[in-house]
Amino acid sequence: MNLQDYLPFWAKLTDMQRKTLQNAVTPMHFSAGEVIHSGSDDCTGLFVVVSGRLRAYTLSDEGKELTLYRLLSRDICLFSASCMMNSIAFDIILSAEVDTDAIVIPSDIYKSLMDQSAAVAGYTNELMASRFSDVMWLMDQLLNHKLDSRLAAFLLEERSLTGSDTLPYTHERIAAHLGSAREVVTRMLKYFQTEQLVHLERGSVTLTDIDRLYQIAEESLR
Amino acid sequence: MNLQDYLPFWAKLTDMQRKTLQNAVTPMHFSAGEVIHSGSDDCTGLFVVVSGRLRAYTLSDEGKELTLYRLLSRDICLFSASCMMNSIAFDIILSAEVDTDAIVIPSDIYKSLMDQSAAVAGYTNELMASRFSDVMWLMDQLLNHKLDSRLAAFLLEERSLTGSDTLPYTHERIAAHLGSAREVVTRMLKYFQTEQLVHLERGSVTLTDIDRLYQIAEESLR
Repeated sequence: MNLQDYLPFWAKLTDMQRKTLQNAVTPMHFSAGEVIHSGSDDCTGLFVVVSGRLRAYTLSDEGKELTLYRLLSRDICLFSASCMMNSIAFDIILSAEVDTDAIVIPSDIYKSLMDQSAAVAGYTNELMASRFSDVMWLMDQLLNHKLDSRLAAFLLEERSLTGSDTLPYTHERIAAHLGSAREVVTRMLKYFQTEQLVHLERGSVTLTDIDRLYQIAEESLR
Repeated sequence: MNLQDYLPFWAKLTDMQRKTLQNAVTPMHFSAGEVIHSGSDDCTGLFVVVSGRLRAYTLSDEGKELTLYRLLSRDICLFSASCMMNSIAFDIILSAEVDTDAIVIPSDIYKSLMDQSAAVAGYTNELMASRFSDVMWLMDQLLNHKLDSRLAAFLLEERSLTGSDTLPYTHERIAAHLGSAREVVTRMLKYFQTEQLVHLERGSVTLTDIDRLYQIAEESLR
């Protein structure tokens, strides 16, 4: 296991810290569909995704799931080790969407590294800020409910016009059509891609789940 | 200005770091209603609230405000220095709700402290986790839309029954009435208090904004 490939702060650790970490981590395999973390009582450790895909979500009172974000190869899940930080007062559920290989770093080992090393603590800040940004973006979507359906509607309309599932459009061009900013459209297209609704390539968008795109065009992401 | 009273990591700084910080901070006064930070281009620094109250909110496409959290005395606002971290990809607006005195720590000074000191970086993690928790709680409210109106309705009903604005009820008792957990009710009551709808004292709740409570009982927090 080449931890240095997965932990950007590796170069800034002491030999001792590297050895501790190397001895503490364990590889784990999760099967597609498996719930691997559920709520704050369950403080397994940090999951570092080697291959596969994890989904983080919450449950509403009525049992409806809301996807918060997804973790792909090299992403690290902090909230499965939420006991590390006093101020984390929410629960997420984490499941493997496909067969997933991960490395688990025990919470106490990571916590003690974080207390010793500004590089580890700083990296943890960046991780949390990324997930925070994901959630803020989602909240904005929930409040605004608009760009998602407008984008889906636009892609479907162009598909009808061109008779092809692959649209040779840049994000810039799509943004211009929607009267939106390029970055905003790029972010939404990437979200569509992680939801497996489209496949993105340089200068083109391929529609891969027409049914769900129609659904979104009519309603919204939820 | 006694920085040590406001910065929990003060004791773990070197003399040099303390001196740098002491020389870099500036006191600021904000008038009630003043917008003091708006969007990510504006990277003033970290605001440490000395007295008063700041409100962090976002704007929907239709210009509707959504309050994310409030900052009271000794709270620190991280996101007014969001340029410090690459992974912060969202904007908040910050305004003074009442006349507010704050200390401003320039972003670059704080960033360099964070890079040097695991204690500063660790504290920053806790700050971010607190705000993240606030936002996750709010998201849950937006998705569930229930406890807030049920709690408001319950308080108003008891007020009618007893003929008094002050209800001698513990949070436990209120939770039992609502079929909810004590912690959940406590958190909602505290939120009501920061919204100035109620005033909490040990073993009692005083209703201070009857009109808005009626509104919430009928609709929801938004």
